[in-house]
Amino acid sequence: MDMRDVARYAYETGQLKRLPRAGWALAGITNGESVAEHSFRVGVLAYMIAVLEGANPDRAAALGLFHDVPETRIGDVPSVGKPYVSTPPAQSIAADQVAGLPEKLAQHIAALIDEHESAKESHATAEARCSRDADKVECLLQAREYQAQGNPQLQPWIDSMAAAVTTETGKRLAAAAQDISPEIWWAEFAANFAKNSR
Amino acid sequence: MDMRDVARYAYETGQLKRLPRAGWALAGITNGESVAEHSFRVGVLAYMIAVLEGANPDRAAALGLFHDVPETRIGDVPSVGKPYVSTPPAQSIAADQVAGLPEKLAQHIAALIDEHESAKESHATAEARCSRDADKVECLLQAREYQAQGNPQLQPWIDSMAAAVTTETGKRLAAAAQDISPEIWWAEFAANFAKNSR
Amino acid sequence: MDMRDVARYAYETGQLKRLPRAGWALAGITNGESVAEHSFRVGVLAYMIAVLEGANPDRAAALGLFHDVPETRIGDVPSVGKPYVSTPPAQSIAADQVAGLPEKLAQHIAALIDEHESAKESHATAEARCSRDADKVECLLQAREYQAQGNPQLQPWIDSMAAAVTTETGKRLAAAAQDISPEIWWAEFAANFAKNSR
Amino acid sequence: MDMRDVARYAYETGQLKRLPRAGWALAGITNGESVAEHSFRVGVLAYMIAVLEGANPDRAAALGLFHDVPETRIGDVPSVGKPYVSTPPAQSIAADQVAGLPEKLAQHIAALIDEHESAKESHATAEARCSRDADKVECLLQAREYQAQGNPQLQPWIDSMAAAVTTETGKRLAAAAQDISPEIWWAEFAANFAKNSR
Amino acid sequence: MDMRDVARYAYETGQLKRLPRAGWALAGITNGESVAEHSFRVGVLAYMIAVLEGANPDRAAALGLFHDVPETRIGDVPSVGKPYVSTPPAQSIAADQVAGLPEKLAQHIAALIDEHESAKESHATAEARCSRDADKVECLLQAREYQAQGNPQLQPWIDSMAAAVTTETGKRLAAAAQDISPEIWWAEFAANFAKNSR
Amino acid sequence: MDMRDVARYAYETGQLKRLPRAGWALAGITNGESVAEHSFRVGVLAYMIAVLEGANPDRAAALGLFHDVPETRIGDVPSVGKPYVSTPPAQSIAADQVAGLPEKLAQHIAALIDEHESAKESHATAEARCSRDADKVECLLQAREYQAQGNPQLQPWIDSMAAAVTTETGKRLAAAAQDISPEIWWAEFAANFAKNSR
Repeated sequence: MDMRDVARYAYETGQLKRLPRAGWALAGITNGESVAEHSFRVGVLAYMIAVLEGANPDRAAALGLFHDVPETRIGDVPSVGKPYVSTPPAQSIAADQVAGLPEKLAQHIAALIDEHESAKESHATAEARCSRDADKVECLLQAREYQAQGNPQLQPWIDSMAAAVTTETGKRLAAAAQDISPEIWWAEFAANFAKNSR
Repeated sequence: MDMRDVARYAYETGQLKRLPRAGWALAGITNGESVAEHSFRVGVLAYMIAVLEGANPDRAAALGLFHDVPETRIGDVPSVGKPYVSTPPAQSIAADQVAGLPEKLAQHIAALIDEHESAKESHATAEARCSRDADKVECLLQAREYQAQGNPQLQPWIDSMAAAVTTETGKRLAAAAQDISPEIWWAEFAANFAKNSR
Repeated sequence: MDMRDVARYAYETGQLKRLPRAGWALAGITNGESVAEHSFRVGVLAYMIAVLEGANPDRAAALGLFHDVPETRIGDVPSVGKPYVSTPPAQSIAADQVAGLPEKLAQHIAALIDEHESAKESHATAEARCSRDADKVECLLQAREYQAQGNPQLQPWIDSMAAAVTTETGKRLAAAAQDISPEIWWAEFAANFAKNSR
Repeated sequence: MDMRDVARYAYETGQLKRLPRAGWALAGITNGESVAEHSFRVGVLAYMIAVLEGANPDRAAALGLFHDVPETRIGDVPSVGKPYVSTPPAQSIAADQVAGLPEKLAQHIAALIDEHESAKESHATAEARCSRDADKVECLLQAREYQAQGNPQLQPWIDSMAAAVTTETGKRLAAAAQDISPEIWWAEFAANFAKNSR
Repeated sequence: MDMRDVARYAYETGQLKRLPRAGWALAGITNGESVAEHSFRVGVLAYMIAVLEGANPDRAAALGLFHDVPETRIGDVPSVGKPYVSTPPAQSIAADQVAGLPEKLAQHIAALIDEHESAKESHATAEARCSRDADKVECLLQAREYQAQGNPQLQPWIDSMAAAVTTETGKRLAAAAQDISPEIWWAEFAANFAKNSR
Repeated sequence: MDMRDVARYAYETGQLKRLPRAGWALAGITNGESVAEHSFRVGVLAYMIAVLEGANPDRAAALGLFHDVPETRIGDVPSVGKPYVSTPPAQSIAADQVAGLPEKLAQHIAALIDEHESAKESHATAEARCSRDADKVECLLQAREYQAQGNPQLQPWIDSMAAAVTTETGKRLAAAAQDISPEIWWAEFAANFAKNSR
């Protein structure tokens, strides 16, 4: 086993830190989140949805975390590009990415990508469905956050993502996220700080 | 169960996208990675190290993913601040963060933070040790990447992170990452592209 | 006297250029002002308030300028972190920062920090009170500016800062700053430019 | 003729201001140039090369300026993605982009894209060959500029771009650009400023 | 002929990628477009307006593309600075910039700047008038785009630019650009993507 | 006295937060410091130099802090622009800026600008000479910091600024700043952190 191949793969995943999520530029956001930042919260949300759906949360988190790693090679194709751009199945790209890794590790990572990609098929695991919904809800949350910062163009993202969610928990979460304001978590802190700092 | 509390927690984790990793500013990097970007690759690395250490990779990934969520409330204390700044145990902050969440979910998340934080204790799980090593190796990889981009100040980070790793796989990975160049994964693509584009 | 210690301190203050003001990230502002930028206008405002309060404006400017220098070591603790994070008095940190400086210079800088920090005590100097108010008004002005650029989340900052001001001039200035629009200073230029460029 | 369709096309080209050139992220450059910035200098270079090649410089500039407009819809596919991503001919995308434009304008723009894309074919116009070389030389110049700023990873770009140039002027220009330092144009000003500011 | 002088000029034009358009900072936009990005769309618009005005579109594009190259030396003087700052005619600066270039190239570039600058004079060419209008309309479009992203301060720019346009096509285009929303070009794609991604 | 005029002036000084220091773009630094950040450390350095020169440090700090406020109207003219751009004396611009301010405040601020601008004249105050030297040394420190981050183009700035300093303390400080590495202030902290974090 050559550990340099493992390091090589780890460096490749670092590309997601430098890859902006392509869609936001359409709404004029040029300094927006990276694919790595998106993937972080997809993992978090997959974990949370899985707990509430009674699925294996650790597994769902791992699926969410890795699901966009193939984008190191093809970039993040924006929605406007979908009618024009053809890309191979994520599994094919993942196969190239894990080539050279220790066999056991290669199989594990390839399986993660495959399981997530199967989310829309009839044999999908519960964890894959949680991870796929997390991907949609994460986008919805980010759109809500940009909206709360003053950008008025995000409603199409919110609507389309809410419509794409399939689990019961995912649907309820998407609705709740539209019901509350993103800043609610810190607003009380800020209010308290105002009192304390006088 | 009020799903708005779940949405509130999910919005809180979004703060990690907006929180820069504090240490890099010391090296003059002002547009550097966020805590969310770091956490993404900590999860990835925890998964990989766990596979090679024979631990549960899904669990290790989940630990790595969540381990910095308490920083939404205290920020990312830079290394120069450690002698000055006192913060409560991460478990205490996590307890506040999950307050209001559905009981089952609150317990799951609190357990993640607690397990990761116990990594240096004698009863630590294998997954916690993988996750902790992933945190160190991720920092080492990022320092190597900034170094490869021309910043000559990163060696102290690389050395200190390499010294902090404890698992056998983590040590070998830290060594391998210093042995290869971060750009190796795409260098051959670029070379091929040169040939093809002529 | 070793001038290299003076240069070392000067380099340390440069860290404030690379340190973002932490609170704005809560409102989704990720490319926001630095502590150095804030400190610049705190100095300007302290000077102005002191002139109108009949205090020594040069002294007040110096207090405002240096008051956040201890943040090079502890970072800018965000308001949400105040209940969690304990930091030593600014005077203690300043003592470490000036250690090694020529005695006369060390005493001068330590005295600046101490005088500003005493602003809320009964023996506070007029200049300290002007500098502290300048700190609050500066934050209010910046919040107003972000608000004027379209971010609708800033009212809590404006309200809490206005409530924290204590001098007569500070109160009137905080009120006036809410009364006018931040762009008023250049709006007439822009209007004239429109006429001229036809 | 509905001028709103003309405005719509003009807004679409604005997307190139928000679209980063994808390849630089591989070299760790996350705040890099946009496709619009690249296109600007491609136009400039096409003009210059055409003057020296005895071609029509106005036409060459127009070709260079418009050649990446189809990227508003498919993004800037990075070199690592070329083996994976299939895109239709630029002419097809351009056809969709100009649909709805006044007929005369639609034909003009479609012809620009078609002429540039034909640069490698035997019937290529001299202007198309100048514009294509400008595309390569521009990338070379930018790589040289990033290199001059301290990033040591750019040599592969420089080499591959130099190898892709086909006109005599393009080849000589690519060689000259490697022969001089990018900062040479202002270095004398800076030196003079030093003398004057004493 | 020394091709290094040609390369030197090409490097000088690269400065426009690093030069922010000064006016937007007045509206609080600190991460705004560069002069190169502006110049790109000025070229595009000049081409389009010229087609519809029956002028030579290639020539108009070249005029628009080069018209701000003198700003490499004087920066982008903001509107608030116009009453204070005196600069020599653009032709004088251009003369210095092209000094050293092969004679033929120097004459061509100097002529471009001179023709554009003559747009307001009675002997102006049709192409110069198209290029000048493109400069105004481009600024109007960008202001509309920033406005659509949530910044409420841009109306003065829109009004003054609309008032400065002189050709029939330019006037109609400025009106149409205010009539439609900048995001209209991709809105239908996003809507379709929502349907497809379910 | 209308406090809204005071607020208006305070908003005007906020423009310096949004105004990049123009010279660094020549060295390829596009995300560089603002004039406000520069002014902050000019104030700090003026204070320090004045203490060591036996001048009034509070006064010197105030001079350094305000000296670039006229740039809100004329921008930061880069060194390459000096031969081309004519601007009125800073005192004239300051007179316009303070017009409308309460008389006492207007006189105070106008006097600050005038005193700093007189630094090179025979009747210059000691504080003005300290403030002017601080302006040069600050630029030198920043150039050293960019250099330490890997940019190899900064030596001309360092040399020219060192040559422009006139006070004894300023000269010794400029020499010392070239003698030590900018990161020295935190390097020991980082080393300690490495030991502690194992």
